[in-house]
Amino acid sequence: MRVVHSAKELRELLQIQKKSGQTVGFVPTMGALHAGHARLIENARIECGIVVVSIFVNPLQFAPNEDFTRYPRNAEQDFEISSNSGADLVFLPSTEEMYPAPQLTFVEVTRVGDYLCGASRPGHFRGVATIVLKLFNIVQPDRAYFGEKDAQQLAVIKRMVRDMNLPITIVEVQTVRESDGLAMSSRNRYLKPAERKAAPALYRALEAAAKLAKSGERDARKIRDAGLVLLRAELSIRVDYFEVVDNEEMQPLQVVQPPFRIAGAIWIGTTRLIDNVLVS
Amino acid sequence: MRVVHSAKELRELLQIQKKSGQTVGFVPTMGALHAGHARLIENARIECGIVVVSIFVNPLQFAPNEDFTRYPRNAEQDFEISSNSGADLVFLPSTEEMYPAPQLTFVEVTRVGDYLCGASRPGHFRGVATIVLKLFNIVQPDRAYFGEKDAQQLAVIKRMVRDMNLPITIVEVQTVRESDGLAMSSRNRYLKPAERKAAPALYRALEAAAKLAKSGERDARKIRDAGLVLLRAELSIRVDYFEVVDNEEMQPLQVVQPPFRIAGAIWIGTTRLIDNVLVS
Repeated sequence: MRVVHSAKELRELLQIQKKSGQTVGFVPTMGALHAGHARLIENARIECGIVVVSIFVNPLQFAPNEDFTRYPRNAEQDFEISSNSGADLVFLPSTEEMYPAPQLTFVEVTRVGDYLCGASRPGHFRGVATIVLKLFNIVQPDRAYFGEKDAQQLAVIKRMVRDMNLPITIVEVQTVRESDGLAMSSRNRYLKPAERKAAPALYRALEAAAKLAKSGERDARKIRDAGLVLLRAELSIRVDYFEVVDNEEMQPLQVVQPPFRIAGAIWIGTTRLIDNVLVS
Repeated sequence: MRVVHSAKELRELLQIQKKSGQTVGFVPTMGALHAGHARLIENARIECGIVVVSIFVNPLQFAPNEDFTRYPRNAEQDFEISSNSGADLVFLPSTEEMYPAPQLTFVEVTRVGDYLCGASRPGHFRGVATIVLKLFNIVQPDRAYFGEKDAQQLAVIKRMVRDMNLPITIVEVQTVRESDGLAMSSRNRYLKPAERKAAPALYRALEAAAKLAKSGERDARKIRDAGLVLLRAELSIRVDYFEVVDNEEMQPLQVVQPPFRIAGAIWIGTTRLIDNVLVS
């Protein structure tokens, strides 16, 4: 596995591989890799000739009051997980490498990015779409891998790829969970022991809501309430949102029709966690 | 020369050419080709192995009150000019081919696209940047050719390419003019004979302003006024803007320092014309 810091060098290395007919799989990350990322890389390894992992904590997708500064960074451990999962190349650019001049160009995926996390974190998906497209243009992958845990991000990227005529297949990979159901997330390491103990309530709430839907309930309000009642029982949790949305444009539903998603975001102390389930 | 209507077919044809090591030159147009476009294509012909011309009147860059419907369309004549200028492939997609689903993704080049035409035509450069990036993603050219007549468009595209890490060289090609100085434009064919006679006043005004600047004047207001006095003498002309801007971000200057641009937009009857000169 090779670690590359320069976009130019990465492009040149990949050029050679592409000329020899290799397909390129790409896993963009913000580092602080965990078993969820490992699964993305492993999937890319199975399906592609060359596997590229990028590690870049993108300032553009954090609001000034958010956790950009304290976001966990651990390059050595990330290299180890990348290597063990089958990565060939790790792209670890500096902020100056990605933004050598003030970024004046932005990619906006309207509608899909407006609700849920888009409403709670204004500008977040603009930052995500912009950096992902920049990385896509550097790597020019055949396939790119994203986790279902960030379902709205996935929907935003899929729509961007389709709308912008990008010749890239987006592969969605199932959420990896701890044994108590908590979705793997780099932000889990912010949690104090008591918070960690409360955190799986989000997944339990999603499962309870999904169970009601699977039993035949079609009223989105009742489905939401079946989850919300569990979340409200956890006094250390503040609900950011808990919603029932369609799976393509992430718009709120009143009457559900599978496939649809139930998605939630909660605050535990100073940590914000998200999760979702697909009802298909 | 081959005419292609499908993005998929174009991609496949170009794939073969690229694999054999050909460089791809790209000239995106809205059709109604004239000698200015011919020069873009000829430049691409000299510098590239394969020359692709796209013809697409992009609804996204026209406001509802603008001339989208009456914009001149003449495919047969466009094919002839393309062929005579050295094009190998003409891409002529339908609106449905370019926008099979509602376009929810938009590319915005802030600052560079805000002033001049960006102020007169809100949303115009968002439409331009979005379609050009879509076309870039379909063609994936090595070099793309744009005319200096649309200097702000050129600045927007150059900034987009730089900000979005696109591996494309943007080539700017000099404005082609009628013998009386009028810049070639598809919209010139809207002009009635009396209007056509008045139209070169825009270039004369730009030249008068440039002449004052070259004589050593540094006060942008005086430079503007040297042009505006000529435009105001033409009673059939209404000035949209006449400004002195820097050449990278198209921002208004108070004190000039070459290189900079003098740019103007005028209305003659129901026709809007633009032009500019670089003072270097």
